[in-house]
Amino acid sequence: MTMQGHKAGAALAIAADVRAGHRSAVSVVTDVIADIEARDTRFNSVTRILGPAAVAQAEEVDKAIAAGRDPGPLAGVPFGVKDLFDVRGEVTTAGSIVLRDNLPATRDAVVVERLRAAGAVPVATLNMDEFAYGFSTENAHTGTTRNPHDTARLAGGSSGGSAASVAAGLLPFTLGSDTNGSIRIPSSLCGVWGLKPTYGQMPLGGVYPFVASLDVVGPMADTVEDLRAVYAIMAGGAPVGEPDMGDVRVARLGGWFADNISTELRAGIDAVMAHLGQDRVIELPEVARARASAFLISAAEGGNLHLPRLRRRSMQYDPATRGRLMAGAMLPAATFVQAQRFRRWFRDHVHAALAQADVLVAPTTVGVAPRIDQPSIVVDGKTVSARANLGIFTQPVSLAGLPVLAAPLAVDGLPLGIQLIGAPGGEAKLFAVAAELQRAGLAACRPLEAGYARKDS
Amino acid sequence: MTMQGHKAGAALAIAADVRAGHRSAVSVVTDVIADIEARDTRFNSVTRILGPAAVAQAEEVDKAIAAGRDPGPLAGVPFGVKDLFDVRGEVTTAGSIVLRDNLPATRDAVVVERLRAAGAVPVATLNMDEFAYGFSTENAHTGTTRNPHDTARLAGGSSGGSAASVAAGLLPFTLGSDTNGSIRIPSSLCGVWGLKPTYGQMPLGGVYPFVASLDVVGPMADTVEDLRAVYAIMAGGAPVGEPDMGDVRVARLGGWFADNISTELRAGIDAVMAHLGQDRVIELPEVARARASAFLISAAEGGNLHLPRLRRRSMQYDPATRGRLMAGAMLPAATFVQAQRFRRWFRDHVHAALAQADVLVAPTTVGVAPRIDQPSIVVDGKTVSARANLGIFTQPVSLAGLPVLAAPLAVDGLPLGIQLIGAPGGEAKLFAVAAELQRAGLAACRPLEAGYARKDS
Repeated sequence: MTMQGHKAGAALAIAADVRAGHRSAVSVVTDVIADIEARDTRFNSVTRILGPAAVAQAEEVDKAIAAGRDPGPLAGVPFGVKDLFDVRGEVTTAGSIVLRDNLPATRDAVVVERLRAAGAVPVATLNMDEFAYGFSTENAHTGTTRNPHDTARLAGGSSGGSAASVAAGLLPFTLGSDTNGSIRIPSSLCGVWGLKPTYGQMPLGGVYPFVASLDVVGPMADTVEDLRAVYAIMAGGAPVGEPDMGDVRVARLGGWFADNISTELRAGIDAVMAHLGQDRVIELPEVARARASAFLISAAEGGNLHLPRLRRRSMQYDPATRGRLMAGAMLPAATFVQAQRFRRWFRDHVHAALAQADVLVAPTTVGVAPRIDQPSIVVDGKTVSARANLGIFTQPVSLAGLPVLAAPLAVDGLPLGIQLIGAPGGEAKLFAVAAELQRAGLAACRPLEAGYARKDS
Repeated sequence: MTMQGHKAGAALAIAADVRAGHRSAVSVVTDVIADIEARDTRFNSVTRILGPAAVAQAEEVDKAIAAGRDPGPLAGVPFGVKDLFDVRGEVTTAGSIVLRDNLPATRDAVVVERLRAAGAVPVATLNMDEFAYGFSTENAHTGTTRNPHDTARLAGGSSGGSAASVAAGLLPFTLGSDTNGSIRIPSSLCGVWGLKPTYGQMPLGGVYPFVASLDVVGPMADTVEDLRAVYAIMAGGAPVGEPDMGDVRVARLGGWFADNISTELRAGIDAVMAHLGQDRVIELPEVARARASAFLISAAEGGNLHLPRLRRRSMQYDPATRGRLMAGAMLPAATFVQAQRFRRWFRDHVHAALAQADVLVAPTTVGVAPRIDQPSIVVDGKTVSARANLGIFTQPVSLAGLPVLAAPLAVDGLPLGIQLIGAPGGEAKLFAVAAELQRAGLAACRPLEAGYARKDS
């Protein structure tokens, strides 16, 4: 057995092997499924294995190669999707039993279709907070996803299955969605790379919605190279631009984003800024209000989406989700209008701040993953619910619609992550900084076993 | 005494006389003020006469002419503004005693400043529903504005003073604001020309807001020429394009917009379409929902704006306005979100309909002005409150943000008006159709006395 060095990019390495005929797509896919069956009992990251369909698609990839046709840049690469992406032939549950009697999807979500066309093979659906409304991937129907680096701890959420399956080495890449931090938080707590693209950039066709004015979908992976390759295909194949630090101006966020964070996290950000030779600090105004506005908008839009069904079948909802959605639906309209008014103000101010720097560095969470038996974090000296408060650094950024690349710091012990925040459409600069941090050894994903990389199985 | 023929454009005629030295600006302004003082007791259209400031500005116009300087295209033309436009030195009341202790405005609203720079002279503030929240100009603080064509009837609202003062011949042009129909309804009920420009086109600086996502300001006048000249200056002097029917495609709105209207109004629209030689009928989808959405959005945004003050001083509000705003502030957020979602859907469908026609013809109200002692109209066979229901044909159009030119039909008896509705930015085509209808004698404003046109006073 040999292990694939993770910096080579597990997904791209698999594709290279399959395309060169060193491994068959079918063997990759069946190995990965066997690995999930063997090991995911510890993590509960996967909700469904798409066995027959995945093997059938892998066979098509192998046939294409045998026939001399191009099988695509991600030929034979297995991946998983948060359980709110349509996968043809499967019922999209959004983590709920409320939708389980829906008809199976007749076609893939747009981004899944694009990845499948590139040769990648969806092999699993992944666990999430019900309807994506949470930061912990504790789900009354499908259970809690455990952090591969310490199974007594949360993986974060709501794309917890997507992050944990990459961190566990079960899958080389996965898809998640991010409304208030749902890609970034589990990416950081599980120590994987994740991207929340610019709001409005990614097609959301076939993705079960949560908050229309905030929802974004994006990839998670174990290297910057894989993340970038998957992102480019999801975005329609448009080239992202080669990572080039050039004269990218980096600043760290002060104020709200410098308070409450752990000593290790602060030291990690110090090291990043020192390595980049940049020392500018930017403070954004009214960050607490920005977070409150993101909360209110999420509750109200989510509540609007679910209200007709809550009126008929509320007891089928996860109790935690039910309460949040009902409260959101009944917020006074004046409060929601105020949040929307503030949002425009805040977005203008954040865009102005981005005239001074291309990339803003901020923590993703206050520290390492909370324990499952006491899901709490400490903010301003108080122990507060992790479920509601893991997003204190991610929600304000969501409100402004900015792209964020979640980078796992190369720390000893439990994972810690940072946000690399860009201007709208500024993904290329985020990848440039991320690639430099990975190259310098300041950021790294350390998947547990990378079962998919066993070439001799 | 001679009377100015109204088709020459009263405002432009005054400016021509003043610029040529046939009349002084001071004499025009003092005559108009005297006329208001003498005759407005019957109409209650004016809330304040801006005497000393108006005379002082008129003196400057006369001095400029004496010195050979250009006094501007509207030199010496008196006008009035709905009492929600800032006029320097005056407290902007928005029709309420709630604001009466505010400091006087230190500068004009942007559109007032532009008109003043063009030589026009603000001489009066005009009556309105409190905070523009109504269709009747019945105001607990300032009284009810009466329709000059029958003082037992409503002038419509909320820009009722603006329409009545033009219809009475007290002022050659006025400014109003339109959120759900507040320029179009009083224009039609009083038989004057009015323009609600495309949403977002006119600067709103110095205009007391009501519903930020719907508010628009625009002019009312007694001819198409005056309306167009004033509009061009309000818009920053950009040329509107000479009215040219060319190949303008006109259609009438069917369905919702064909029901409930009076026989005379239907005959008037028939005559317009026959004259234009066009017979296409377009039906917009879900118009009832569009109207409901405009109602909900107005209530919620208005409620948000006023909530802090309603908490402290609610008993100072007009009882009718107070109830509407309080209810709006407390609407469930889910309802407001639904209205916003529907709004996007409706706007897309209306824009698609506008691919088939440049100008849509629709009634403004179901019929003539309601009586003050029984402010009701008949909709679907039921007698309903005029205050809430005069906007059934205007509110759906507001929701889509379209420009509308309100044209007074040349009918015997009480005024009736139609809406000429365009695509966003399509004002030039509205003016083309309006000019043609005026030229053909199908539409006309018939001001009572036109006191401002007495050249020999």
